[in-house]
Amino acid sequence: MSPSRISRFPVPDIEALPADIRQTILAVQEKAGFVPNVFLVLAHRPDEFRAFFAYHDALMEKEGGLSKAEREMIVVATSSANDCQYCVVAHGAILRIRAKHPLVADQVAVNYRKADITPRQKAMLDFAMTVATESGAVGEAHFETLRGHDFSDEDIWDIAAITALFALSNRMANVTAMRPNDEFYLMGREPMIAADNTQ
Amino acid sequence: MSPSRISRFPVPDIEALPADIRQTILAVQEKAGFVPNVFLVLAHRPDEFRAFFAYHDALMEKEGGLSKAEREMIVVATSSANDCQYCVVAHGAILRIRAKHPLVADQVAVNYRKADITPRQKAMLDFAMTVATESGAVGEAHFETLRGHDFSDEDIWDIAAITALFALSNRMANVTAMRPNDEFYLMGREPMIAADNTQ
Amino acid sequence: MSPSRISRFPVPDIEALPADIRQTILAVQEKAGFVPNVFLVLAHRPDEFRAFFAYHDALMEKEGGLSKAEREMIVVATSSANDCQYCVVAHGAILRIRAKHPLVADQVAVNYRKADITPRQKAMLDFAMTVATESGAVGEAHFETLRGHDFSDEDIWDIAAITALFALSNRMANVTAMRPNDEFYLMGREPMIAADNTQ
Amino acid sequence: MSPSRISRFPVPDIEALPADIRQTILAVQEKAGFVPNVFLVLAHRPDEFRAFFAYHDALMEKEGGLSKAEREMIVVATSSANDCQYCVVAHGAILRIRAKHPLVADQVAVNYRKADITPRQKAMLDFAMTVATESGAVGEAHFETLRGHDFSDEDIWDIAAITALFALSNRMANVTAMRPNDEFYLMGREPMIAADNTQ
Amino acid sequence: MSPSRISRFPVPDIEALPADIRQTILAVQEKAGFVPNVFLVLAHRPDEFRAFFAYHDALMEKEGGLSKAEREMIVVATSSANDCQYCVVAHGAILRIRAKHPLVADQVAVNYRKADITPRQKAMLDFAMTVATESGAVGEAHFETLRGHDFSDEDIWDIAAITALFALSNRMANVTAMRPNDEFYLMGREPMIAADNTQ
Amino acid sequence: MSPSRISRFPVPDIEALPADIRQTILAVQEKAGFVPNVFLVLAHRPDEFRAFFAYHDALMEKEGGLSKAEREMIVVATSSANDCQYCVVAHGAILRIRAKHPLVADQVAVNYRKADITPRQKAMLDFAMTVATESGAVGEAHFETLRGHDFSDEDIWDIAAITALFALSNRMANVTAMRPNDEFYLMGREPMIAADNTQ
Repeated sequence: MSPSRISRFPVPDIEALPADIRQTILAVQEKAGFVPNVFLVLAHRPDEFRAFFAYHDALMEKEGGLSKAEREMIVVATSSANDCQYCVVAHGAILRIRAKHPLVADQVAVNYRKADITPRQKAMLDFAMTVATESGAVGEAHFETLRGHDFSDEDIWDIAAITALFALSNRMANVTAMRPNDEFYLMGREPMIAADNTQ
Repeated sequence: MSPSRISRFPVPDIEALPADIRQTILAVQEKAGFVPNVFLVLAHRPDEFRAFFAYHDALMEKEGGLSKAEREMIVVATSSANDCQYCVVAHGAILRIRAKHPLVADQVAVNYRKADITPRQKAMLDFAMTVATESGAVGEAHFETLRGHDFSDEDIWDIAAITALFALSNRMANVTAMRPNDEFYLMGREPMIAADNTQ
Repeated sequence: MSPSRISRFPVPDIEALPADIRQTILAVQEKAGFVPNVFLVLAHRPDEFRAFFAYHDALMEKEGGLSKAEREMIVVATSSANDCQYCVVAHGAILRIRAKHPLVADQVAVNYRKADITPRQKAMLDFAMTVATESGAVGEAHFETLRGHDFSDEDIWDIAAITALFALSNRMANVTAMRPNDEFYLMGREPMIAADNTQ
Repeated sequence: MSPSRISRFPVPDIEALPADIRQTILAVQEKAGFVPNVFLVLAHRPDEFRAFFAYHDALMEKEGGLSKAEREMIVVATSSANDCQYCVVAHGAILRIRAKHPLVADQVAVNYRKADITPRQKAMLDFAMTVATESGAVGEAHFETLRGHDFSDEDIWDIAAITALFALSNRMANVTAMRPNDEFYLMGREPMIAADNTQ
Repeated sequence: MSPSRISRFPVPDIEALPADIRQTILAVQEKAGFVPNVFLVLAHRPDEFRAFFAYHDALMEKEGGLSKAEREMIVVATSSANDCQYCVVAHGAILRIRAKHPLVADQVAVNYRKADITPRQKAMLDFAMTVATESGAVGEAHFETLRGHDFSDEDIWDIAAITALFALSNRMANVTAMRPNDEFYLMGREPMIAADNTQ
Repeated sequence: MSPSRISRFPVPDIEALPADIRQTILAVQEKAGFVPNVFLVLAHRPDEFRAFFAYHDALMEKEGGLSKAEREMIVVATSSANDCQYCVVAHGAILRIRAKHPLVADQVAVNYRKADITPRQKAMLDFAMTVATESGAVGEAHFETLRGHDFSDEDIWDIAAITALFALSNRMANVTAMRPNDEFYLMGREPMIAADNTQ
């Protein structure tokens, strides 16, 4: 791959960043083996960077009623509805890893109604899609449906908040033309490779 | 007005909140004369509260190429497209005050194309609406149009980021059924009252 | 406010109008204290003016199953769906007065589902919105739902006909760029002012 | 054909109608050879009937820059966009007669862009469709385009007003389930029959 | 009528076509009295012509649970949703003939919900419209609804496949600007003419 | 992966199929190493199977102005617009192989405007998307734009016809709930694997 631009806006040099942001980025690099472009693109605005990742970690990293894989399903499904290349590719990779399922991300991205997920997860994504595309129509009936699938009200807040955060994220990625790192495309597809290689 | 519910979710008692959040809320109350409900509703989740207001202040309170009134125009126009009652009513009030114009908020909320704003401001809102409703279609041509109206690339980031933050905020307000405080409805309409009272 | 244009088309001089139209306009002025611009803009075509106000009065001024405030709710909700600045602002004022409720017009304009109105009124507006946006889909089921809320068939005709008349009116206001009079913005917000002034 | 219901609402007996309405209906019957159902269905509400036909005649029967066939094209194209069976069938018949063209009504109803009409007429229908479906977006550019096709501002008012009146009419026809008379389907197709019969 | 172009693309001379295609066309001409333009327009690509008509005959000419008139209803309703002038006009004619009903094609083209068809046929067209406009949302519930109207699973395949084939056909007709033959407009309206002529 | 259902309809046993269809399927299996499910699902209807693959081969396998990779881009982009899981996953694999580019399929599936493709290819996909979603609006201007990118009229037919064929295919895959074979997900991603393995 050629060294394509990763943003329509200037991308700061890591060395020139405020210390806390540089630390965050180096820690991610240490863990993932590369720096996901969202960190570099958003670092153009340090205060917004800090707020975004604080919000992100509050929703995506905590314990709670939704599994981490389920949170990533919400991101993939709604980001696809928003035509956000970065979020579908990057969070598709994370979903494959967290779900330990190499197919589910592509399935959810194209049509979650036919993905290898549970009816409860489909109800979760039905609601997330409503929040993503016509949140003004959300009413008590949506809460009742989700409660019928054993989601608590706190879970419902989580579904809505993750969808809302990525409504923000998708728009920033689309306007900055944020480019997904090449590394994401193959991540989490390894179980099938492994299986093939064991023969 | 009866003491209507302000959220579908539990609303914390101010006294029971973490000190930093309580301080934020008391400071707002001191300045505005009341506590806007968004502070109480989002305080249900302290970490998300902190991230949201950090993001908000980074975009809405700083200096920059967009006037504070213009930033509120973006909020009002895009929140109306998202059917968000809280944001249209609350930020409509702030827009009236910041623009010192008692009519502009209602005009922008219903149809910004016919509001008492400049052609440059209409171009700004055209772009904000594209980001709000089909951000995947944003391309170089949109940037060229805005540069032709003397918006810098940093201004364009601001327009996009404000739209994106309220894409998040509108969805949370719609899902929580966040109720606008009664106080907002009349705020900033005073110039006309003053005029009437001088007789 | 500057003396902005109130129409893209010529606005006749009141003195030059046919006597019946001049009389209508002077009577409204007498009652309201000003001439709502819709009278001046539509007077450009006297025959259409007469037909429009005859239709209007037949639906909005008569007795019947819908209260006058409810008829104005229909106008405000559907005119907002049609992005009609004149009708939302002018009929928002009338709604505030007829409902004796200073908040309801702004609530209905942004998202009637969350307005301070009864479930029966929400069902009324659900139907009005269907008539406004996809009348070809109206079927027996819609009638059954409304009958279940104690609307008679004559009431249903009224809801549909008011929606239909403002489908016409919204389009004329949008094409003529009909400007709402400044007076409308503050009308009917007085109860709150009064309350403040009593202290 | 069986005597199908022509309205969801009561249809008055002609003899029981107010004299002026009865006269109107008998005159139409005299001229057309049958009573178009719109007269019977709307006569359920005499005041609305009078206002509707006054409006209709002011726009459809007068002299002016648009030919009578062109006015019917507007009705057929926009009524098709509104899924209004009565108006497409009835005004399709009138269009065939007024245009002396047995094919044009079906062409315009399905896709006016490919009908046997002039580029000026296509520009007229482009505008009518915008007024029918998103009138809030009408702006100066639309006026300029139409003036470039030699439409006067009075013609533009006519295009808009006809579209607006049938926005009303389509909604009433859809809600009342107004049935087109069987006679309309074959009217104006005679030139082809005549041609066949001359052999 | 003038000899209008029937396609944006070259139309082959019948004599120059491969023998099998020429035979197909001459057979149709023999039966119908004219060559429907779809045969001439698609003959520009012989292999695609053969595949299209093989598909068409497999679905439209065989025996099965759907009557031939019902299959044409599906074509007319979904082709209207796709703004396809050729298919609505040509298959409208065939529908009139197969249903022996001179009104049904125009009714179905404008709004099938109000056509003179059975509730079972309306359910069939509800499903066809879903397949035409949002097939990704088709789920088990749609199958259950159709089974409740006594459609077998093979019938459901037929409804879907006919809709799918005309999704293809409508797009080719729209892109080639395929012109309906003048003959179609009056075909199948004869019962009414016959009735008139018996006097 | 568990042996999930590949169709809502019965899937024939290969041995029981007509000889020509069995031969086709065995030949594909020989070449690909597995039988893509579309062959098994559509074999439920042999005549439709034959017509579909004849059409497919006439468009996808011949020589012509569009490269084979470009034809697959059209399939992936428009199938994504139609929410068709089978076609996006299966043809995404073929696109990766034909383009020798492991990233392009996922990019095109989510947002072709930001894919690593040429401006000419973006113009091609702009047109394909118009044909997929609003073919009734296609006009001379679309042809001019494509000619400006050096597409011949025959190329334009190809773009339209491929889009049209997959409009059919997407609808059949969605209604049958056709399941993509697990093998497709990893196909064509090998260059990256190869690169990793060289270390």
